[in-house]
Amino acid sequence: MIDKSRAEAFSDGVMAVAITLLALNLAVPGPGHGSLGRLLGERWPQYAAYVVSFLTIGIIWVNHRAMFSRFRGFDHTLLILNLLLLMTIVALPFTTSVLAAYLRSGSGQKLAAAVYGGSFLLMGLAFVGMQWHALVSKQHLLDERMTPEVRDAVLRRNVVGVAPYAIATAGAALTPYLTLGICAALAVYYALPGTTID
Amino acid sequence: MIDKSRAEAFSDGVMAVAITLLALNLAVPGPGHGSLGRLLGERWPQYAAYVVSFLTIGIIWVNHRAMFSRFRGFDHTLLILNLLLLMTIVALPFTTSVLAAYLRSGSGQKLAAAVYGGSFLLMGLAFVGMQWHALVSKQHLLDERMTPEVRDAVLRRNVVGVAPYAIATAGAALTPYLTLGICAALAVYYALPGTTID
Amino acid sequence: MIDKSRAEAFSDGVMAVAITLLALNLAVPGPGHGSLGRLLGERWPQYAAYVVSFLTIGIIWVNHRAMFSRFRGFDHTLLILNLLLLMTIVALPFTTSVLAAYLRSGSGQKLAAAVYGGSFLLMGLAFVGMQWHALVSKQHLLDERMTPEVRDAVLRRNVVGVAPYAIATAGAALTPYLTLGICAALAVYYALPGTTID
Amino acid sequence: MIDKSRAEAFSDGVMAVAITLLALNLAVPGPGHGSLGRLLGERWPQYAAYVVSFLTIGIIWVNHRAMFSRFRGFDHTLLILNLLLLMTIVALPFTTSVLAAYLRSGSGQKLAAAVYGGSFLLMGLAFVGMQWHALVSKQHLLDERMTPEVRDAVLRRNVVGVAPYAIATAGAALTPYLTLGICAALAVYYALPGTTID
Repeated sequence: MIDKSRAEAFSDGVMAVAITLLALNLAVPGPGHGSLGRLLGERWPQYAAYVVSFLTIGIIWVNHRAMFSRFRGFDHTLLILNLLLLMTIVALPFTTSVLAAYLRSGSGQKLAAAVYGGSFLLMGLAFVGMQWHALVSKQHLLDERMTPEVRDAVLRRNVVGVAPYAIATAGAALTPYLTLGICAALAVYYALPGTTID
Repeated sequence: MIDKSRAEAFSDGVMAVAITLLALNLAVPGPGHGSLGRLLGERWPQYAAYVVSFLTIGIIWVNHRAMFSRFRGFDHTLLILNLLLLMTIVALPFTTSVLAAYLRSGSGQKLAAAVYGGSFLLMGLAFVGMQWHALVSKQHLLDERMTPEVRDAVLRRNVVGVAPYAIATAGAALTPYLTLGICAALAVYYALPGTTID
Repeated sequence: MIDKSRAEAFSDGVMAVAITLLALNLAVPGPGHGSLGRLLGERWPQYAAYVVSFLTIGIIWVNHRAMFSRFRGFDHTLLILNLLLLMTIVALPFTTSVLAAYLRSGSGQKLAAAVYGGSFLLMGLAFVGMQWHALVSKQHLLDERMTPEVRDAVLRRNVVGVAPYAIATAGAALTPYLTLGICAALAVYYALPGTTID
Repeated sequence: MIDKSRAEAFSDGVMAVAITLLALNLAVPGPGHGSLGRLLGERWPQYAAYVVSFLTIGIIWVNHRAMFSRFRGFDHTLLILNLLLLMTIVALPFTTSVLAAYLRSGSGQKLAAAVYGGSFLLMGLAFVGMQWHALVSKQHLLDERMTPEVRDAVLRRNVVGVAPYAIATAGAALTPYLTLGICAALAVYYALPGTTID
């Protein structure tokens, strides 16, 4: 069994960089491109997407921490699944910037929202894959305090948690605001004090 | 209660990336845009803003470290409040670049300074929120060595510490140099050897 | 002997930043440059290169972790060799972006593939250099559980593992797709569950 | 006395990001700007500066690690001095890019080299400041194994080590290649196996 401390440190590092790179989307043109007030006002989708994506990666980190606390250690497969999860997280600043750039554009806004929602969906699936591997396939990787009841509850919560992101992705076909709204609502929901995440 | 070591590592990572991204604002055009001496000279607001923001994020880190040392552990709310605090810190390179770009521009310089000061103000409020949660609402999260006297002193210092940033933000209506001056003075003040920060 | 914990933390940090910077290559132009669907479609080499490079740096990290777990500590030479290894890893986002930009270009695509494959080759050589130093030259740096049999197997696996990257680099003279194909196949191979990496 | 573990983690993070951001200077234009071979060839100053700066930040990290291993803990002043040291390190990717852009330019190359050498000089001075504070002013911060002989040797080595960077900076007035040459030679010298750094 592989010690989990460096997997934690590496994952924390990747998520810390990804969440901070979101700020690169906030950029505004310098003087000579019109009033600063108007420039900032026009960019509200970028600021909304920044807040939603920041909270979302933050929530992912909170859940990632809770998930790792249930593991005693890693095998090679779990390390690779963790890499796939990180790959979807690292892509979030990109899909966020696509949505921010196209949200108010006449064309491409639905595709942009589908890309945005789809990246959240892939991330949710990678999460389920990791949980499944440890909770179902390789239970020797689990902390000994995990009872079957807790295990089932965690698994159920994770599988159910993927559904809204699937709806958000499909909903992009109607309007991109539906996708952004669902993703924002989920970020707020998971951030609320009462939410049991561990 | 949630162990604080990964929250520390994640926060350190986010602040380390944010403080380093400040350097992206230092960029200067390549040859063919006039004398290098003049190009560097014209950009002094960028270099001033870099130094002030670097010291400020550094001081935030020093305070963050001191705050965490007072906690025994975390609950879900404290993790989320910490995320909100990090969100304001991560936005500092952006608000710094806005101020640097508009400080000497004929229009938009007051708004740019208000955005700059406002982001410091939000950061101060997030700090107070975290302290309040642990020092007042959820005292079981506190280190057992915290006496009521120390607790009150810490809380008072934090609430009082927000005021100058409110003044710096409002002062942008007069001149952006007032905002930059107050923020710079605060960074220097907190960096002085005698300042009690823990 | 130098304690290995900070060398681990620094290496984790560097690899975490490098793997996350890969996402900067995903950028797509904003509205007004044609259909978003076509813009995304045209950029498939960027997305393929992102996935291959992300998995590759991830695999490097997995191997780096395994390598460090075999060391008891560091000497100055091993720290410097580790820096050289990190230098080749940090260059991967750059060589990835060169390949992504030139893969479908009429001219320069073979050179771009050679640069891409060559950076993987250099990285493999730096890896072998580190292993050689500890496994052959300075065996007091090794964990006491390392038997001569394990040592020989690790060394053989590392030296043999460099060959495909040499072929991928030379293969760029034929077609860049050969280089990308070999590098992708290696990333998948090392990611497979059965692969013994430690 | 302040525990040193978070100061280590934060410093490692900052240096890891700064060293990785150096790779952003490697960028090359996409197809349509002439032959890739010529584009890469023209950019050799960027690649030389990348290697020199990467090794230099790497060596700084090695020295920083050695310096911290001599401390038992921190006071507020030492934290602030560490921030100032990090501020000069974080500026290195910028000064590196200035030198890389102007090294072969008809005008501005001497100023660019002075900026490059000057940032190394400032970094060396910040290093001396930190050492001085702990080795001379506040000896209770030192590890108890430090004898007066070791202390004097460390201090002497640090003060003497600043001189070549002062010469490299002044030498920019003659030719920028002198500055680059001295900085490169110092990076190689400190990387050599025989160098006593701890």
